[in-house]
Amino acid sequence: MANDIVKPSILPGFMELLPADQILFNKVMDTIRHNYEKFGFIPLDTPVMEKSEVLLAKGGGETEKQIYRFNKGDTDISLRFDLTVPLARYVSQHFNDLNFPFRRYHIAKVYRGERNQKGRFREFYQCDIDIIGNGKLSIINDAEIPSVIYSTFKELGFEDFTIRINNRKILNGFFESLNIENKGDVLRTIDKIEKIGEDSVVKELVELGIEEAAVRKVIEFIKIKGSNDDVLKSLEDLGVANEIFKEGLEELSKVVHYIRCFNVPEKNFKIDLTIARGLDYYTGTVYETILDNYPNIGSVCSGGRYDNLAEYYTKQKLPGVGISIGLTRLFYQLREANILGENASSTLSQALVIPMEDCIEDGIKTANNLRKNGIVAELYLEEGKINKKFGYADKLKIPFVILVGPEEIKENKVTIKDMASGEQKMVSFEEAVQIVK
Amino acid sequence: MANDIVKPSILPGFMELLPADQILFNKVMDTIRHNYEKFGFIPLDTPVMEKSEVLLAKGGGETEKQIYRFNKGDTDISLRFDLTVPLARYVSQHFNDLNFPFRRYHIAKVYRGERNQKGRFREFYQCDIDIIGNGKLSIINDAEIPSVIYSTFKELGFEDFTIRINNRKILNGFFESLNIENKGDVLRTIDKIEKIGEDSVVKELVELGIEEAAVRKVIEFIKIKGSNDDVLKSLEDLGVANEIFKEGLEELSKVVHYIRCFNVPEKNFKIDLTIARGLDYYTGTVYETILDNYPNIGSVCSGGRYDNLAEYYTKQKLPGVGISIGLTRLFYQLREANILGENASSTLSQALVIPMEDCIEDGIKTANNLRKNGIVAELYLEEGKINKKFGYADKLKIPFVILVGPEEIKENKVTIKDMASGEQKMVSFEEAVQIVK
Repeated sequence: MANDIVKPSILPGFMELLPADQILFNKVMDTIRHNYEKFGFIPLDTPVMEKSEVLLAKGGGETEKQIYRFNKGDTDISLRFDLTVPLARYVSQHFNDLNFPFRRYHIAKVYRGERNQKGRFREFYQCDIDIIGNGKLSIINDAEIPSVIYSTFKELGFEDFTIRINNRKILNGFFESLNIENKGDVLRTIDKIEKIGEDSVVKELVELGIEEAAVRKVIEFIKIKGSNDDVLKSLEDLGVANEIFKEGLEELSKVVHYIRCFNVPEKNFKIDLTIARGLDYYTGTVYETILDNYPNIGSVCSGGRYDNLAEYYTKQKLPGVGISIGLTRLFYQLREANILGENASSTLSQALVIPMEDCIEDGIKTANNLRKNGIVAELYLEEGKINKKFGYADKLKIPFVILVGPEEIKENKVTIKDMASGEQKMVSFEEAVQIVK
Repeated sequence: MANDIVKPSILPGFMELLPADQILFNKVMDTIRHNYEKFGFIPLDTPVMEKSEVLLAKGGGETEKQIYRFNKGDTDISLRFDLTVPLARYVSQHFNDLNFPFRRYHIAKVYRGERNQKGRFREFYQCDIDIIGNGKLSIINDAEIPSVIYSTFKELGFEDFTIRINNRKILNGFFESLNIENKGDVLRTIDKIEKIGEDSVVKELVELGIEEAAVRKVIEFIKIKGSNDDVLKSLEDLGVANEIFKEGLEELSKVVHYIRCFNVPEKNFKIDLTIARGLDYYTGTVYETILDNYPNIGSVCSGGRYDNLAEYYTKQKLPGVGISIGLTRLFYQLREANILGENASSTLSQALVIPMEDCIEDGIKTANNLRKNGIVAELYLEEGKINKKFGYADKLKIPFVILVGPEEIKENKVTIKDMASGEQKMVSFEEAVQIVK
């Protein structure tokens, strides 16, 4: 039957990887998962589709335009745009079946119909952890979260990264002491200082109607610099007579104290009064994580403390603290910046078994035995010239080829070739296992 | 701010699990993945959404009504309903960047808006492997696939399962020798023999216009029973003078021979001439897998050989062989049949560290050190009565609690409690690590 051929392609704004990159991507994802699990977070999985009335209960917001929303029959369906709203729905729905503090991780795809631009994806993996309390949640949890970030990025192979920490109560209390009322706008403006610079921030603040004296104090405040202890001291010295400010400062001091207990090195975390995390959502501690040598990438892991996770679904007060790694975007950026291995392998196989003609049974036995010895082994079963078979191992970067031919069978041995060095020798099966391992 | 509360719930026909079940589910998924990787299959990930014109290039079919299809702007989007069509699209699109035979696994969610009924899900995980050849693909691959099934179900804890094997060419050739032209209809009818019984199959075949003599031969044929060698012998003895039949018989004989080489025990695979796999798609070997003690569950792992994966996307001939495990449905059925552990744990944590008041720093240090020793450890940081803290470990089924109090600190020890036996003793940190491990 002759068919019309449709050109195979995917939608714009979606990431699809070739094998070598996919293997790398999965390694990064496995490392994140392993670290989340090490700290006792449990896995969660929720449907990609939710009832629109439930998912969008909070309504409004900039993201609403981006949501994939459609009808199937008379059901109004939306695809999740983050993992936090589904978490809020899950915890409210299953409240009586859960134990608190509820520590969960969720690594899954979310969907946003963003404007199509380089490095922005409409389908992307988020890797979230959250600790949810029932009614209240100790501030010390806010110090454990950075230790998870530290452990994760360390295992991902990074040395030079900084977890930036702030507390929204300090900002809020400080603004309150200056009678600044449009805190949200001011926070959003301050948040941009790295992108647009001090002068533009001043200009925007004035435009927001902040008195010049107050603007000067705000700028002075966000320019407080130094070691973590210096900054805490400077904040103390400001002598701001505001209860929220004092509460925030006490929380931040505790968080810094306990982060040290969690063995996060001093070089890897830093109080930074300029970060606020644009979202209205956060109410206390906030985090951003910067790769020191690649500041342009922006924050690779962000999050914070919120007072009330699920006010749209339950009257239970559920405070929490969490972070998210936007894995798809991070992977794209690491690749663009050539941080990822260039010479990546397109295989998980450690050995390719090539049986010579009429030796297939013995080739299969060899592969069976390699697998029994914990070696990822693949068989080349197709007909063809031996060069083509070696070429397959070469292209995929399979490190070892194991040849099984009549001579090998007679001698009860195998021939092993190290594809990197080109060295080839006939050895016993046990020796071959040792070499591959 | 007072908000209207929206009742938290999910769409009907979607599976969402509580922590204990989710942990079990993930263990099953990890086991499948591990076995797929052990045989040298590489991971693939494709977008959940595709262009409708591409995804539905094949068009028609029963599934089309079930597809989640919608417009976003002027883009016509569909959600994938299996992992095979995206594989066909991927291999055609990236043909020049891939090496053949291309061995990939894909474990991911697919979507079908099926009629809502017990045990049927609209979002479900498929766990697929396929081996795709460029132009041709050795029949021995058809024998390796059952060894992957065997290895996987064995590691999932099953002993009594049967991989049923057949070859469509045998059926097709046999029908051709009887001048039966509507093979597809006949195959679909035969496929139902277990469900509806022999009499109903006979009735349906007569209704399909098959002559009574031919119907008798068909029934005789599909009733061929015995050991694998018996069945092959009986097929040989039929003396069907048809080339397709002969080709199929030769293939099936080879597959049986090589399955044995792959160390699949004789009890775990069986030629079954009644299976045909309803889909027109398969052209040679077909597989079904039955849990012997739960035949009602039906096939838990099915697949087969196809001549041409991607005829809608490319003129390249891409034969392949593969299988799929419908994990969500399988998990649901195993749970319904009480095959899964009843007493499942709601945690991955091996130890819960409970610091007494004013001993939090030392509690944190203990947790750090446990994690450094490869133990999944969780800290209980909330205030409250000690009973509540132990109750948390008890409810989640965390096996050990490690108490850190003033006395323990003085003695440079910890108190460890085995939550199952209730035994509690003060030991050195190193001893505690040994006990937990």
